[in-house]
Amino acid sequence: MRRLCYVFALAMLCSPLCYASKVDTVEIPSAAMNKTYKAAIAFPDSYYKAKKNFPVLYLLHGGFGHFNDWLNKTPDKMLVRNLADQYNMIIVMPEGEIFSYYIDSPVDPNSKFETYIIKEVIPFIDSKYRTMKDKKGRVITGLSMGGYGSLYLSTSHPDLFAAAGSMSGALDPNMTTWNLTPERFNGLTKFLDKIMGPMTPDSYLPYSVVNMADQIRKNGLPIVMDIGVEDFLLEPNRELHRRLVYNHTLHDYTERPGGHTWEFWQDALPYQVLYFSKRLKANGVML
Amino acid sequence: MRRLCYVFALAMLCSPLCYASKVDTVEIPSAAMNKTYKAAIAFPDSYYKAKKNFPVLYLLHGGFGHFNDWLNKTPDKMLVRNLADQYNMIIVMPEGEIFSYYIDSPVDPNSKFETYIIKEVIPFIDSKYRTMKDKKGRVITGLSMGGYGSLYLSTSHPDLFAAAGSMSGALDPNMTTWNLTPERFNGLTKFLDKIMGPMTPDSYLPYSVVNMADQIRKNGLPIVMDIGVEDFLLEPNRELHRRLVYNHTLHDYTERPGGHTWEFWQDALPYQVLYFSKRLKANGVML
Amino acid sequence: MRRLCYVFALAMLCSPLCYASKVDTVEIPSAAMNKTYKAAIAFPDSYYKAKKNFPVLYLLHGGFGHFNDWLNKTPDKMLVRNLADQYNMIIVMPEGEIFSYYIDSPVDPNSKFETYIIKEVIPFIDSKYRTMKDKKGRVITGLSMGGYGSLYLSTSHPDLFAAAGSMSGALDPNMTTWNLTPERFNGLTKFLDKIMGPMTPDSYLPYSVVNMADQIRKNGLPIVMDIGVEDFLLEPNRELHRRLVYNHTLHDYTERPGGHTWEFWQDALPYQVLYFSKRLKANGVML
Amino acid sequence: MRRLCYVFALAMLCSPLCYASKVDTVEIPSAAMNKTYKAAIAFPDSYYKAKKNFPVLYLLHGGFGHFNDWLNKTPDKMLVRNLADQYNMIIVMPEGEIFSYYIDSPVDPNSKFETYIIKEVIPFIDSKYRTMKDKKGRVITGLSMGGYGSLYLSTSHPDLFAAAGSMSGALDPNMTTWNLTPERFNGLTKFLDKIMGPMTPDSYLPYSVVNMADQIRKNGLPIVMDIGVEDFLLEPNRELHRRLVYNHTLHDYTERPGGHTWEFWQDALPYQVLYFSKRLKANGVML
Repeated sequence: MRRLCYVFALAMLCSPLCYASKVDTVEIPSAAMNKTYKAAIAFPDSYYKAKKNFPVLYLLHGGFGHFNDWLNKTPDKMLVRNLADQYNMIIVMPEGEIFSYYIDSPVDPNSKFETYIIKEVIPFIDSKYRTMKDKKGRVITGLSMGGYGSLYLSTSHPDLFAAAGSMSGALDPNMTTWNLTPERFNGLTKFLDKIMGPMTPDSYLPYSVVNMADQIRKNGLPIVMDIGVEDFLLEPNRELHRRLVYNHTLHDYTERPGGHTWEFWQDALPYQVLYFSKRLKANGVML
Repeated sequence: MRRLCYVFALAMLCSPLCYASKVDTVEIPSAAMNKTYKAAIAFPDSYYKAKKNFPVLYLLHGGFGHFNDWLNKTPDKMLVRNLADQYNMIIVMPEGEIFSYYIDSPVDPNSKFETYIIKEVIPFIDSKYRTMKDKKGRVITGLSMGGYGSLYLSTSHPDLFAAAGSMSGALDPNMTTWNLTPERFNGLTKFLDKIMGPMTPDSYLPYSVVNMADQIRKNGLPIVMDIGVEDFLLEPNRELHRRLVYNHTLHDYTERPGGHTWEFWQDALPYQVLYFSKRLKANGVML
Repeated sequence: MRRLCYVFALAMLCSPLCYASKVDTVEIPSAAMNKTYKAAIAFPDSYYKAKKNFPVLYLLHGGFGHFNDWLNKTPDKMLVRNLADQYNMIIVMPEGEIFSYYIDSPVDPNSKFETYIIKEVIPFIDSKYRTMKDKKGRVITGLSMGGYGSLYLSTSHPDLFAAAGSMSGALDPNMTTWNLTPERFNGLTKFLDKIMGPMTPDSYLPYSVVNMADQIRKNGLPIVMDIGVEDFLLEPNRELHRRLVYNHTLHDYTERPGGHTWEFWQDALPYQVLYFSKRLKANGVML
Repeated sequence: MRRLCYVFALAMLCSPLCYASKVDTVEIPSAAMNKTYKAAIAFPDSYYKAKKNFPVLYLLHGGFGHFNDWLNKTPDKMLVRNLADQYNMIIVMPEGEIFSYYIDSPVDPNSKFETYIIKEVIPFIDSKYRTMKDKKGRVITGLSMGGYGSLYLSTSHPDLFAAAGSMSGALDPNMTTWNLTPERFNGLTKFLDKIMGPMTPDSYLPYSVVNMADQIRKNGLPIVMDIGVEDFLLEPNRELHRRLVYNHTLHDYTERPGGHTWEFWQDALPYQVLYFSKRLKANGVML
């Protein structure tokens, strides 16, 4: 054992050189949308060594993004792979399309990403790979629209996840709560209108995660939120945090420097994965 | 290299068994106080393998504590050692005595813990061990009174530290900002009076870290703060955060579940060390 | 006209001497509760001169109070009468009993104060006196439980009021949001339990005015809130204010010095009546 | 007496017709600036009847305004006169010039409006008119830059005023705390630079009223603040409020609907004058 430890220490020192996590791109069909979307999956190196089931982190992209953003757009291209390795997690990055909001759209019958993620992606992943197949070993987070998706999906399906996170989450689709210039407001309106219908003071309320604070409390799912103090989405994030403090919901809430940028998300993700690793460890499913 | 990686992966899987960080207890004399105090030092296992200089984290204890609290009082007794190992840092836990507040007391000539930490402990550590000997490789944090000490000392000596943290920091010695019952207020008064003199609305102002927000901005030192939403010190922590947001100081601020407890500090410390590791990495001094 | 103005100026200068508002105590029966309760009514002096219809302010008492509190407990015993005179309003102070919360109790069939105020007191007043008989001329406010009653009743019956206020409102019956010692918490629990049933995290939600922020927005009723910064009910008041800012509801919100005291309510009431007078003036019903 | 009251009641009912306050425009020379500026003074009708000394409210205009704004720009042109009549106060509206900020400019020797208001305007008014000549009967407020002026002057000269107010106060000249588009930011920069010199993170600190919170506490002067929730100056106003709550300074703070507009100031002024009338009454100087 003692010798092994020496080697271990040596290994730690050379870790930048010997990372070995692998990323696969797979196609995950959607019967609901009659279409097939790609997804990226980062496997920890240990996945190929240990014949065990691994916890899975679902990592969602933002409103103008796609499934491979988390691999291509962070300044450090190894970020997701290194985290998969470091924490012995499978990290799944599914497709959420431009402004699907990860909901089943009430106005566009061709956009059913809630059904896709919940009924199609998760079962696909669990059937193809050595995953923990219950909520104890499944967590979810995302950036911007993906932070919304993570909290919306986990609040609507609390039986599926052990914890959920949000980074710079677009938590309230009511854009009057966003800090936007009139030009940007108008520019974004058409994207949201296409997926949720015309915005009125009431119409988007049922989709606002901010308004789900009491449901989040009832579910009891651990929540972790990160937001930049220069983000145009700061206010809805603060508002959800305040409501969760007010109703005594256990959650972690962090304000960090920065805005709605990949530098911020690269900074935030390791803290969120550390948070999830603690929940998974408490559930006895961390390797 | 490939074989090494296999071994590395194996080592990761057995890491709970083969931790090897070592803790020394040393005596660090104080000429200023004509007395010698003990300190605990956690060395990463790599310290004994790599003939390099290591970054140092100074980790301060709370108002009713002593140098070895961080080793004895966390539910997981391996917490500090594992972090030293994981991040290849030396973690120094010096003595701060009961309610010294880590200042040179204006009323008790025998209590000079600012001088002790700055002029005696740090030079002692740097002279005896293979440490990074400049600010790029030195960080500091602590709990409660130790959070105060960390921010007070780093704000007063910004040339010495690369970053500073606070967990549940007693950032404002003016206890009228604490959420206390009258009984606890009165019980604590005598401890603070002994070190800072009788509290008046003005007398403690020069010692309030909350009032140093503009100095913190000028120094430009990265700051990380953690506070529990049930902590009686929540308000002063929120106030410093708000002032740092207001004056555009880069800092991370997190509210988590919990109160003024070791469970909270055990939860918070790994996030703070992750924060420091990012600063140290940016400074090019992480192993 | 010029002579009249001289007299007017003279009259202003002697106004403390020549106030003439009158207070009647009447009995207003409740068929719903099979009981009769007293109410106090302050009439402006002008009521006896001008054969016009007057606007009415309903002014509710607190949890341990009765209908005549507003006349007996303010340091200045003339406060309500002077305001009636100054603004040419009838001020009605109905009975709300100990901890009725101005609701129809879901557990005590003998406590139906929502029905009483809405279906019995208001029609009684409108049938006996020269009042404006529609919402344009009717406003409501109250202190503590009466602030709750005012906002709860006006939100549930927005067709009846032109504006509503709250002073130190007990806006959320979930006492875990109040800043109480355990002793006071326990002492108050039995009063709330009797009227709303046993408190659980969910049971009181439907009664929380804080959770009615979106209904308040939809109603569009002007709202005015006053709260003391030392009040144990500060947090629920701040929370409703934040939610009303967040959802863009027009309202006035003031934090003033003081706690849950008659000095505070005496200080706050004139501002609230000034607020109401502006709404009534805008409605064209101020004399 | 009884007959007088009848007449009084009648007078109240006709008050819109018989207002009689008078406004004078006077020239108040400045030796410090070697120039003469106009001021408007509203006298209550009672000034001509009662041979007494009257309290004085100094009412300051905003950054792009002049002495007669408060008479010309409120939607209700009688607002200031009616308040003078209603509360038996002299209301003085001095000149503050475009962006003088009511300070003695550190960069423009020709702009000395602190000296002007304090050493020239107040003595001029007290020497020419029947005023209360000590702090007990003198109050001050203003809008935007005038709110700044009011709090800056009263904090720097606490011996001169009984209370001070701010409406939409430009309390922090550091424009990075204002919510501005880059275009507006740049447009305003040149005005501030001319009076305070080039803005750096530190240069405007000594002029920030937000940073004077501890001095305001020490002075003990009652403070009243009004701000619109859509005002670009909301954040500095909230920040000063929070600091005054934090350090236990007695003050009234109100958030109302609206932005940086004359509708807002017309709405706010009557509340502020009511506030002042209470302080003056407590000082025994209200007629």
